[in-house]
Amino acid sequence: MSELDAVLFANEAFYRAFADRDMDAMAEAWAENTAVSCIHPGWGLLEGRDEVLQSWQAILTNPGAPVIQCLAARVHLRDEMAYVICYEEIEGNYLIATNIFVHEGRRWRLIHHQAGATAEDPPKDEDADGEGGLIN
Amino acid sequence: MSELDAVLFANEAFYRAFADRDMDAMAEAWAENTAVSCIHPGWGLLEGRDEVLQSWQAILTNPGAPVIQCLAARVHLRDEMAYVICYEEIEGNYLIATNIFVHEGRRWRLIHHQAGATAEDPPKDEDADGEGGLIN
Repeated sequence: MSELDAVLFANEAFYRAFADRDMDAMAEAWAENTAVSCIHPGWGLLEGRDEVLQSWQAILTNPGAPVIQCLAARVHLRDEMAYVICYEEIEGNYLIATNIFVHEGRRWRLIHHQAGATAEDPPKDEDADGEGGLIN
Repeated sequence: MSELDAVLFANEAFYRAFADRDMDAMAEAWAENTAVSCIHPGWGLLEGRDEVLQSWQAILTNPGAPVIQCLAARVHLRDEMAYVICYEEIEGNYLIATNIFVHEGRRWRLIHHQAGATAEDPPKDEDADGEGGLIN
């Protein structure tokens, strides 16, 4: 698996944890040895692993939490940091997100997530997944 | 100037270009040798320097473009990539943004910007500026 694929895999694992409402997997997706932060749509800045994971605990245990799917992910990688830009489909509506990762141990883990509203649909081209590349 | 300060300086230069409607300074703020992307509030993903700068040209030349101020910036730095999370005050309302930078030549330049709505006010603590730090 290339490093680009490894970052996309980590991004997918984050959204799978979200979709499966799997708090253990969500906790695994986030870095443990690096400062983390999170901006949910419309929220302010959450900082620190405890505050970030508490927000996910509240979201994942909310019976009204929506089904989510990641679309058109694009990854950019530079040395030990990477970021993914992707759309999030939630019950026919779309959000757009920036997810930043670091290499922690042998895998990529999330250090920052911002999702917000978008008036646009994601590109239809499914080949978009995996686009992006190494940052020169 | 420390590298953290240099990143904050680049972030400030971006917002100064925005506030001054200075398209030359805005073009300078964005990387030239690295893939760039931008997500304005409510917009879809813009990719590539041409597309990104055209969007800023449209915003900066719009007579109705709002006054903007960056508040409570927090910088995180790892090797050759850094990101800043900050609030944006626009006519008494707030947005929240993630700005990613790379070291290009002798300075930090923007490679990705996402801004979105937030229901929260920025922290009142002015000392927030410059918080964050090196990513271990």
